[in-house]
Amino acid sequence: MVLLNTVFILFGGTGDLAYKKLLPSLYSLHEKKLLPGKFVILSLGRRMTNETAYKNSIKNSFNNFTPEFLSLIRYLKFDVNNRNDYSTLKNVLENIDKSYDTKGNRIFYLALPQRFSKQITLNLKTHKMINRDKGIHKIVVEKPFGNNLESSKKLNADLKQVFKEKEIYRIDHYLAKEAVTNLFVFRFSNKIFSDIWSNKYIDSVQITAAESIGVEERAQYYDNSGAVRDMVQSHILQILSLTSMEQPENLSSESISRKKVEILKDVKKFSDDDMANITVFGQYLKGCLAKDYVKENKVSNNSRTETYFAMKLEIENKRWNGVPFYIRTGKGLKEKRTEVVIFFKENLDNSLFQQKLCYPNVLTITIDPKPAIHLTINSKAAGEDYHITQEKMEFCHSCQLEDDNTKPYERLLYDIFKGKKDLFAMADEVYEAWKIIDKIVLNSNNKPCYYESGTWGPKESDILLLKQNKFWNNE
Amino acid sequence: MVLLNTVFILFGGTGDLAYKKLLPSLYSLHEKKLLPGKFVILSLGRRMTNETAYKNSIKNSFNNFTPEFLSLIRYLKFDVNNRNDYSTLKNVLENIDKSYDTKGNRIFYLALPQRFSKQITLNLKTHKMINRDKGIHKIVVEKPFGNNLESSKKLNADLKQVFKEKEIYRIDHYLAKEAVTNLFVFRFSNKIFSDIWSNKYIDSVQITAAESIGVEERAQYYDNSGAVRDMVQSHILQILSLTSMEQPENLSSESISRKKVEILKDVKKFSDDDMANITVFGQYLKGCLAKDYVKENKVSNNSRTETYFAMKLEIENKRWNGVPFYIRTGKGLKEKRTEVVIFFKENLDNSLFQQKLCYPNVLTITIDPKPAIHLTINSKAAGEDYHITQEKMEFCHSCQLEDDNTKPYERLLYDIFKGKKDLFAMADEVYEAWKIIDKIVLNSNNKPCYYESGTWGPKESDILLLKQNKFWNNE
Repeated sequence: MVLLNTVFILFGGTGDLAYKKLLPSLYSLHEKKLLPGKFVILSLGRRMTNETAYKNSIKNSFNNFTPEFLSLIRYLKFDVNNRNDYSTLKNVLENIDKSYDTKGNRIFYLALPQRFSKQITLNLKTHKMINRDKGIHKIVVEKPFGNNLESSKKLNADLKQVFKEKEIYRIDHYLAKEAVTNLFVFRFSNKIFSDIWSNKYIDSVQITAAESIGVEERAQYYDNSGAVRDMVQSHILQILSLTSMEQPENLSSESISRKKVEILKDVKKFSDDDMANITVFGQYLKGCLAKDYVKENKVSNNSRTETYFAMKLEIENKRWNGVPFYIRTGKGLKEKRTEVVIFFKENLDNSLFQQKLCYPNVLTITIDPKPAIHLTINSKAAGEDYHITQEKMEFCHSCQLEDDNTKPYERLLYDIFKGKKDLFAMADEVYEAWKIIDKIVLNSNNKPCYYESGTWGPKESDILLLKQNKFWNNE
Repeated sequence: MVLLNTVFILFGGTGDLAYKKLLPSLYSLHEKKLLPGKFVILSLGRRMTNETAYKNSIKNSFNNFTPEFLSLIRYLKFDVNNRNDYSTLKNVLENIDKSYDTKGNRIFYLALPQRFSKQITLNLKTHKMINRDKGIHKIVVEKPFGNNLESSKKLNADLKQVFKEKEIYRIDHYLAKEAVTNLFVFRFSNKIFSDIWSNKYIDSVQITAAESIGVEERAQYYDNSGAVRDMVQSHILQILSLTSMEQPENLSSESISRKKVEILKDVKKFSDDDMANITVFGQYLKGCLAKDYVKENKVSNNSRTETYFAMKLEIENKRWNGVPFYIRTGKGLKEKRTEVVIFFKENLDNSLFQQKLCYPNVLTITIDPKPAIHLTINSKAAGEDYHITQEKMEFCHSCQLEDDNTKPYERLLYDIFKGKKDLFAMADEVYEAWKIIDKIVLNSNNKPCYYESGTWGPKESDILLLKQNKFWNNE
């Protein structure tokens, strides 16, 4: 596929995201010759005074970057609040088009907090940098996409004043992790599993996104956001969608997104009373991994923000009626682990080994830290008689898939060049996720359940499952 | 469970089977305190003149046997053709009952070629060694159980003149191998697999029992028997039964045997014309592993005996209609391997990845040489786009199950003491197997297809599968 000559306008070019993810990913694509034939990275930022300073900083930070790659980078000192800077930007872009033959094709990458989106996009329009007659335009925004349904719609509406939905790329790099995309591939390419992927065979599902670290340097953001907005809205609901969605008609972003939206709409709307019984909000205390959350730097000392959240969700459709989906996420937990665990039903209609314990089959799809797929099976224990033991079949994914931190960005950037959107979040998915989150957050004003850091969370979370005779997969 | 005091009468006490399998297994049971409280091994044989000579031979052969175990062993020089010897035996047994409190409980183990069975059992009766008022009697016979249906029925009729079916233990130690019994446990204890164990999900089944060695010291027996009688009648048809049988009502030998008999009866009866198209008889030639079969010691030099056999079987019932069962066995093949391979159907109704190659799922249950279970799954290949690779999930059975050669005998002997018969062949199973074998053997008079030793057999066998676009699992 021939990629169109393009200029890549990087708002926040001196920020963390640019330095840690975007520049290394662009460099890697360059080394693999996967950038457009003519390609310019125009970094915008406040921190560096001029291009020389910026380039020096890049050379110092990335001493492996080749001169050839560095030659693709331009810099403009830019203040998003300064209207004059947009005029300058306009001129620079027109000059680049002339000098580098980038033909008016522009990718605007907003590597900045979302509060700047509106003014940037409106200024792009006001200053006539959007001209579809002269080239293809794309805008890339980073998650979080709003803080709730309302702000998310507002954010989108702002973007839509300038860009069309097909021009908007909402990046959640999590979706491009190999193990996450494989969740999709695994489900729909293995007939023996896709045939039994329903309430007829599945007893319950657990989704865990656990971090062992505390809140660390993201405290300010996190204290306003909490685990539900930070992790459930994006990662967990995306994993839930991929785990439970119907098979899309094809691999287009529209088809995939449609099925994700459908499943999110099918998530049961609980009453506020019910909510209290099926959610657990936790906050970590001093333990072997961290100090009290409220004593963390930049956290308010009477904060009730949840650093842990667990919930029993249900999906109301033919495939999933009656199957509880237990989700949990948190910081300061016993270990870093993201996984989907499918508990198949027990062999109740099978009386053959009734007096011997026969375990249900369990499929574990681990995403972090070491991608893997495990299937527990019953097998004969060595020795006389039919004693049964539970054994694990393992497919070690990580042996095949190296998935360093920049890889997902690399893939997504390449997809943006190609105009391939299946790994980006579509507006409707985001809205549906926020509808679920808003309802949860409404019920979060109680005092959190405390847990020691370094454990698997508050005991209330264990009780949530025990009510139905189940246990979290903590092994 | 308290085991009854017993005398264990070992016909063929100086033979290979006694030395290689039975005595070591009895010793192992003794060390584990799994022999009856009062227990005497009365070895009968022609080779040693008296008990002292026999005990010396045992001491020399098994220098690990403890004096305590050796004290359980008695010896009687015995000629099965000499009627007087039976009188002596009767007296010895009565004395043993008195001296060792074995209470008339007798296990007669015929570790001798089957041609001696009739005269031995009849003489046991004539000489009044069978007295059910005075104790429990059991008789143990070794496979092969006849050479065809007729001789097998004759053999049974002879046994039945003296013993009741429930007193007869037909030993095929193969059935007690851990990996073989696990085939049964695996199928009926893993709901996700038992639910898809049918023609709705399974495309075809392959059963392989391959040996890399040539005919070796069994040449004389083998040249009269051939691969079909030697391997298919017992091992392969037993594995086929375990793979395809319906779930028995319970774990009793009667229930299990009933289901095995049912499935063997469902094996399609092919016409002689059909037979020619679905069977391959092979014979090995000089190659990297052996000389020409006909040049082996004790093999007739115009022998047409098959050292290789392959066949496409069908099972005519609701579960298996339309699923070919490919079986093969042979000597002088590329490697030693016994396995069942289940090929699941392809994802034809799934157009999602239609342009990408999507592999069928394959479940491999390896019995020899290293028990294991593998499941191949489709997974996403690392990198952009939805490229699919085939990966293996593995459960290494042999890590759990040590299965040295004597273990199956040990288990079966213990089962005999306990009166547990589920791992022994029942008469009806043997008859049904011979019906299938007789029909095959009828069609074996053609010139065999030759193959070089050290390969996977004659090319005709590959063609048998190629006709249906399939391949042997030779990986």
